[in-house]
Amino acid sequence: MAEQHKVVIVGGGFGGLTAAQTLKGADVDVTLIDRRNFHLFQPLLYQVATGGLSPANIAAPLRSVLRKQRNCRVVLDEVTGFDISGRAVICRDERIPFDSLIIAAGATNNYFGKAEWEKHAPGLKTVEEATEIRRRILSAFEEAERHPDGPNRERYTTFVVVGGGATGVEMAGAISELAHHTLRKDFRNLDTAKSRILLVEGSNRILEAFPEKLSRKGEKALQRMGVEVWTSSKARDIQADHVMIERDGKQLRVETATVVWGAGVRASPLGKMIADATGATVDRGGRVVVQPDLTIPGHPNIYIVGDMAAAVSDGRPVPGVATGAIEEGKFAAKAIVKRLAGKPDVGAFRYWDKGSMATIGRNAAVAQVGWLKLTGFIAWLAWLFVHITYLISFSNRVMVLFQWFWNYVTRNRSARLITGTDADPRRV
Amino acid sequence: MAEQHKVVIVGGGFGGLTAAQTLKGADVDVTLIDRRNFHLFQPLLYQVATGGLSPANIAAPLRSVLRKQRNCRVVLDEVTGFDISGRAVICRDERIPFDSLIIAAGATNNYFGKAEWEKHAPGLKTVEEATEIRRRILSAFEEAERHPDGPNRERYTTFVVVGGGATGVEMAGAISELAHHTLRKDFRNLDTAKSRILLVEGSNRILEAFPEKLSRKGEKALQRMGVEVWTSSKARDIQADHVMIERDGKQLRVETATVVWGAGVRASPLGKMIADATGATVDRGGRVVVQPDLTIPGHPNIYIVGDMAAAVSDGRPVPGVATGAIEEGKFAAKAIVKRLAGKPDVGAFRYWDKGSMATIGRNAAVAQVGWLKLTGFIAWLAWLFVHITYLISFSNRVMVLFQWFWNYVTRNRSARLITGTDADPRRV
Repeated sequence: MAEQHKVVIVGGGFGGLTAAQTLKGADVDVTLIDRRNFHLFQPLLYQVATGGLSPANIAAPLRSVLRKQRNCRVVLDEVTGFDISGRAVICRDERIPFDSLIIAAGATNNYFGKAEWEKHAPGLKTVEEATEIRRRILSAFEEAERHPDGPNRERYTTFVVVGGGATGVEMAGAISELAHHTLRKDFRNLDTAKSRILLVEGSNRILEAFPEKLSRKGEKALQRMGVEVWTSSKARDIQADHVMIERDGKQLRVETATVVWGAGVRASPLGKMIADATGATVDRGGRVVVQPDLTIPGHPNIYIVGDMAAAVSDGRPVPGVATGAIEEGKFAAKAIVKRLAGKPDVGAFRYWDKGSMATIGRNAAVAQVGWLKLTGFIAWLAWLFVHITYLISFSNRVMVLFQWFWNYVTRNRSARLITGTDADPRRV
Repeated sequence: MAEQHKVVIVGGGFGGLTAAQTLKGADVDVTLIDRRNFHLFQPLLYQVATGGLSPANIAAPLRSVLRKQRNCRVVLDEVTGFDISGRAVICRDERIPFDSLIIAAGATNNYFGKAEWEKHAPGLKTVEEATEIRRRILSAFEEAERHPDGPNRERYTTFVVVGGGATGVEMAGAISELAHHTLRKDFRNLDTAKSRILLVEGSNRILEAFPEKLSRKGEKALQRMGVEVWTSSKARDIQADHVMIERDGKQLRVETATVVWGAGVRASPLGKMIADATGATVDRGGRVVVQPDLTIPGHPNIYIVGDMAAAVSDGRPVPGVATGAIEEGKFAAKAIVKRLAGKPDVGAFRYWDKGSMATIGRNAAVAQVGWLKLTGFIAWLAWLFVHITYLISFSNRVMVLFQWFWNYVTRNRSARLITGTDADPRRV
């Protein structure tokens, strides 16, 4: 009996996990490699960062998800290189041979060359970043409580979110909920509703991925919630106690102790690594330029999917969203099976745009599904439905649904713990 | 109008929080000081350490719990000293004057002079320790998966729990559940059911606080679950890769990568600090020796409650358990109100022993309530009922109940995330 075809998948995010699940029952030997032991539902990380959900609510252990898929092995390891001619992925602890390779290592925050901003303005890509942001936001209110009215208190009750995409909008809306409702009666000396929440966006409108009408509606909804929306504004410097923002040609100094980064992502460094090893090119965001079938030019057995791929569908770039990664993961897995069955012509990947949505706060969201544009409560319900549907495990779904229902009714966010290894958890 | 009587409470655990809540509506000005922003339900920390619950399930933000109690202010700060003659608690950021003082800062792990053991054998007192133990246990299985059968794999699948009290017993039982059920089908190369779980107890029986009959039943139940129970055995050394255990006069070396400490607690260092400031004495465990009314001799306005107090009821020491702290907190708060009302004779604190209980695993527990001794499923149901009842917030109760129900039905533990700031989360 010939040895089974070995499929190695790097990354257990939306793209990699979908690829592994699509190969269920196929006559291949699958190895899924990830640095973490869980799949993370990144679109809901902002809920962890604002105390609405616990990390475990939006994470599912990879071994648990793939437990019943007997042709799939999970390896907890870090990829350090690729041996293309030897057909192996080199990890820290082992060398894993492949016949076909799917790389789906996702993206990290992009500070556009300002790496020093990271410590002052964490992004929302990992559980640790989310709990760190949660610690900073809650600690800022604690600091504000101990200062009298004045510049110090103002600094601690000013929150700056950089980037007006879905992540930034959701984050700004959730901070507003915290300040205006959840925490309102928690403090004796401080009126948290006087907080200033600033959303800074470089282009001339927020939610650029949406039709202009929805951008406007989203902006209005944020403003009603007390969020200041600064479009055509760019962060020029970020320090521990202030940010410099360029707006209308002026440099404005905003005193703040809490900055959240949502202004951009770039592909995992594995993108550059595989490109160097195969002679492929990467774009400005570090994404690997792939063929229409998602493979690397000259390497029909190496697929790049998800946020790491600069993929094109019908002449347009595939957006870096969960549904894009899911579709690409499924396509790559099916392409491998087809080629093994002697059908090398798998055609080109075509992205079926299921639409975009962003929640803004309680009862408010914007959604676009094909020609359909939704706003307000209906959009919010649609957002809820879609996110619950995509959550990986049933247990998570029910827990999140219940927690949301509870938070909705009580306006509470019970997961607002200040945790960390720091001896004094209050220090920012 | 005279200024209100100032009651300062140090610590938001069972004792301090109960004291604050008991003063609701009283004509006093209450300040509750804690280093953390949440009350933690410590008896369930072992569930966090073994992936059954999320930290937020067993924590309640102090401000949220006390939100409606208008005479109570919460201060997030660390106590650094006491000015007894000046009647003030000195914190890192402010000086808080008091007329009456209740100190309830709890206990920390006691390594009996072997501070160097702490890094190899974390205890179960904080959220951070619990998630660290969770990381170590899950990472050990991951390491075992990558090693072939042999000494290395054995080391990673050997778990040593030091201390056979309720904490140690619950921890050993929960690790056994993980190894024998939850993780059983998660690994391809490793049979987690072959794990070795060792419970080491210095005295001649586990669960010493219980009647001997229940100790025996508990030991039998653990053994049925595959836990080796070593009584009359003492840890003599703990290193990263092994422990030395003295048993029957012999020194035995046990290779293990994962040790959990449940062998003892000592009072918070604030005990020694207040004793030095007031001329009180502390016992071997660092607990402050108090009068029958829980005050410090010569200081009728300073109360010590909970794990920090060496309190006596009817000639017997009050055990360091949640119910003891709760009763003491209530007593101290009521004593303050009585004395303010001109009734200085508050009598002696009397502990009403509500019984003790420890869960051993699915369907198994031991419980003693007065003359009533329960074991097995009934004891387990009683344990469940009592723990749900004592959980502070309603939201927590429902979430925990649901999560437990789900874990019970599926034998799943969905909160088994390996998290931490370490770049490589697998490294122990």
